[in-house]
Amino acid sequence: MLTSNIARDENGSLLFAGQDVCALADRFGTPLYLMDEARIRENCRMYQNAFRKAFGDAALPLYAGKACAFRQMYRIMAEEGMGVDAVSRGEIHTALSAGFPASRIWFHGDGKTDEDIRYALDKGVGCFVVDGPEELEALDAEAGKRGIRQKVLLRVTPGIDPHTYEAVNTGRVDVKFGVPIGTGQALEFVGAALNAEHVELDGLHCHVGSMVFDETVFEDTADLMFAFMRELREKFGYVTGTLNLGGGYGVRYVEADKQADIPARIAALAEHLRALAARASFPMPVILMEPGRSIVADAGMTVYTVGSVKRIPGFKNHVIVDGGMTDNPRYCLYRAQYTVLHAERAGGETAVFDLAGRCCESGDIIQPAVTLPADTRRGDRIAVCTTGAYNYSMASNYNRLGRPPVVMLREGESYVAVRREGLDELCALDL
Amino acid sequence: MLTSNIARDENGSLLFAGQDVCALADRFGTPLYLMDEARIRENCRMYQNAFRKAFGDAALPLYAGKACAFRQMYRIMAEEGMGVDAVSRGEIHTALSAGFPASRIWFHGDGKTDEDIRYALDKGVGCFVVDGPEELEALDAEAGKRGIRQKVLLRVTPGIDPHTYEAVNTGRVDVKFGVPIGTGQALEFVGAALNAEHVELDGLHCHVGSMVFDETVFEDTADLMFAFMRELREKFGYVTGTLNLGGGYGVRYVEADKQADIPARIAALAEHLRALAARASFPMPVILMEPGRSIVADAGMTVYTVGSVKRIPGFKNHVIVDGGMTDNPRYCLYRAQYTVLHAERAGGETAVFDLAGRCCESGDIIQPAVTLPADTRRGDRIAVCTTGAYNYSMASNYNRLGRPPVVMLREGESYVAVRREGLDELCALDL
Repeated sequence: MLTSNIARDENGSLLFAGQDVCALADRFGTPLYLMDEARIRENCRMYQNAFRKAFGDAALPLYAGKACAFRQMYRIMAEEGMGVDAVSRGEIHTALSAGFPASRIWFHGDGKTDEDIRYALDKGVGCFVVDGPEELEALDAEAGKRGIRQKVLLRVTPGIDPHTYEAVNTGRVDVKFGVPIGTGQALEFVGAALNAEHVELDGLHCHVGSMVFDETVFEDTADLMFAFMRELREKFGYVTGTLNLGGGYGVRYVEADKQADIPARIAALAEHLRALAARASFPMPVILMEPGRSIVADAGMTVYTVGSVKRIPGFKNHVIVDGGMTDNPRYCLYRAQYTVLHAERAGGETAVFDLAGRCCESGDIIQPAVTLPADTRRGDRIAVCTTGAYNYSMASNYNRLGRPPVVMLREGESYVAVRREGLDELCALDL
Repeated sequence: MLTSNIARDENGSLLFAGQDVCALADRFGTPLYLMDEARIRENCRMYQNAFRKAFGDAALPLYAGKACAFRQMYRIMAEEGMGVDAVSRGEIHTALSAGFPASRIWFHGDGKTDEDIRYALDKGVGCFVVDGPEELEALDAEAGKRGIRQKVLLRVTPGIDPHTYEAVNTGRVDVKFGVPIGTGQALEFVGAALNAEHVELDGLHCHVGSMVFDETVFEDTADLMFAFMRELREKFGYVTGTLNLGGGYGVRYVEADKQADIPARIAALAEHLRALAARASFPMPVILMEPGRSIVADAGMTVYTVGSVKRIPGFKNHVIVDGGMTDNPRYCLYRAQYTVLHAERAGGETAVFDLAGRCCESGDIIQPAVTLPADTRRGDRIAVCTTGAYNYSMASNYNRLGRPPVVMLREGESYVAVRREGLDELCALDL
C-alpha cells in the first residue's frame, strides 16, 4: 500500500488507520475527509526529533497551517510543541481560539493589510515574516503606536529553482514573495529593518518551494543564504540569528513517487549548515523550517460514494462521485496525481475510469485514468489517498455544495473535528 | 470601456453602474464584489424578450445558478420571471428560501445522490434533468414511493465540439454528462424512461458548452437533436415536447473578445429550429436554454486594495492585492482573461505588472501582464471587470481567508446581498 496506515482486511475492505473505511462512510456520510491523528503526531515527532538531533533545542519546525487548518489541528500542534506558520488573520484566529500560544506563531504573507498587522500585534503574535518594504514600514508605524519592538524575520528570495510544481515554486528571483538578493534589493531591505525603531530583526526567511525532492535544494539555498549573511555582516555588522529555510519535503501521492527520508535529509542539511557556519566563522543560526504537506498529507483520505458509472464504448469510462473539485481542486489546478482505491473490494477484473466529480463542469475530474473493479457501480465507496494537505483547506462551495466533515481517527475511535456544512450554513451570510 | 456600465468621472475615478468604486471600497472594505442589479435585470429581459419573440410564450430561459447563487439573486430571478437551473440541494435550498417557486426549478447534475432525489421530490421541484440510467432508476423508485409521476428531461450528448474552453466543453461524446446518442445508449435511455412508471418524459436536454461564440454551434446541435428526435418517433412513437439546448452565449472579458448579439442569435436559431420542425413534420418543441454567465458576468466587478508592489529589475513587476485565487480562481484554473483597471486614476506613465493575490502560493495570480499606472502603490484600489460569474460561486477559504461580501448597486444606492465572512464564521464548523 502507498502508506503504512492503509491496508485491506481479509475480505478486501479498505482500512485506514486500522478502521473500516466503508463503516466510517456509513456512519458519517460521504463525501468524507478522514484524518489519522496518530500519523499527524508521528510526523510532528519525526520532524522534532530530527531537528533536535540535528540543530539542537532552539530549532523548531513550524507547521504550515495553510495545508490544513481547523481548531483541532492547532490543538494537536500545541500538544506536540510545534510552532505555527500562519498566513492570515483567519489562521491566527483559528489557532488562538484553539488555545495555541500566540508566541509560537510566525505570521507570513505577501499581502498583509493594515488590519492584519494591527490584529497580529494586538494578539501578540511571536514573529512577523515581513515580505517587503511596504509591510516593514506599516509594521514599524503600528508597533511604534503600541510602544513595542516587534520581532521579525525578513523574507528574501535567493533565486533557486527547486524542480517542483510551478505553482509552489517560490525561490525564483521573479516570484511575488520576498525581496530578491540578486538585484541588491534584499540588502536595502535589511538595512531598512536595522534602522526601523520598532522592529527587532531576528533573522532571515527564504522558501524555495514545497514538495522538494531534489537532494541538494536546501543545501544550495543555504549556500546562497550564507553568502548573503556574510554580505550583511560586512556591510552592517549584522550577524543573522535565525535562518528559516521554509518548507518542506515531498510526500508520496502515487507509488512511483520517491519516499523522502526526512530525518536523513535534515541530518545532512545540518552538517552542511555547520560547515558553512564554521567556514564563515558564524555562530550556527537557530534553524526553522515550515513543513505542512509532509505533516498532514499522508494522514488524510477522502471517501466518496459513486453516483453513476458511464461506459462509453470506444471512448472512455467515467466513475462519478458525490464530491469533486469542490473538496479536492488539486487535479483541476495542478494536474496533481492521486492514488484511488475501491473501498469495498480489490482484485477481480478491472477497468480504467476517469474519477469525476459531481460539479456541472466537464473539467471536474478528481483523477483521470484510474484502475478500479470493472463492475464498479452506483453506491460503491471510493477512497482517494493522501488528501490531508490542500484538500479541506482549498475546498469551496462551488455548485453550492456543502463542504465535507473532517473526522479524526484515534486509537480505534473516531470523532468529528469539523462538522459537515449544511444547507442553512450555505446561506448563513445571505441577506 | 469594456461594458457600458463601466466609466470614469472627470477626475479619472472609476465608476461602476454610475457609482464611485473607491467610495464603495471605503464604505464596504475590500476585497469586495460589486453587482449591478440593473444589468442583471436587463440581461434577463434581453433573454426573455428574445425568447418570447423567437419561440413564443411557452419558451423559458433558465438562469444557471452555478454562475452565481445567493438568496437575493433568486429573488431577482423570481421577479424577472426566469426559470432556474439548479445543480444541488444547496442551490435548491437557497432558491426556495428566497421564495423562488419550486415549480420553476430544473434539477441538473451528473452525481445526484438518493438524498438529493428525495429532497427535490419532497420540495416539489418542477423538473429533473436526468443524467443517466442509474439516476432514472433511483428517481423512478423514489417517485413511486410518493405515488407521483415526476416530470423529467433526459440529458443526452450529441457529440459536438463547441470550440470553447476545455473545462466547459460538454457536448463531446466522451464527457461525463448525459448519455451519448452516437453509441446507441441514448436510445435505450429514452426507452427506459418511457417504460418507467413514475416518470413523465417531458423531452430532451443537451448542452454543448458555455461561452459559445461559434455562430453555428446551437444550429449544428439542433440538427443532431432533430435527427435523434426522428429516431425516437420511429422507434417509440414518442414526440419530443421540450428541447432544452443548455447554455449559453459568450461574454466579453477583454476588449479583444467579440460581443455576441444574443437576440439576433436566438432569432436565427429559432428560424433554424422551425425549419427543422417543419421538415420533420414535428410540432415546434418548447425551447429552454440555460444562460448563466451571460446573465451575471458583466454585472460584476471585484475591487481590491494593493498590499505591495514589487519591481524586480530585469525580471517582472508584481502588484499584490488583498484577495486572489480565493475569490477568483479562474486564472489559476483556466488561464481565464480579465480586464484590470486602476480604480483611482487612468492615464500617465504605465508599466506592466502581474496582478497577484495574497495567498501563500506562487501560482496565485489573478491576471498576468496587466497595464497599470507605473506609480501604483500600497493602498491603491484595483478593479477586475466582468467577475459576476464563477467568482463568488467558486470562492474558497484557502489560507483561511474570509470570502468578500456581495454588494448590489441599484439606482444610485447600494445594499449588501451577502455579508463579509468574518473570523468566527471561518470557525463555525470547527469543534
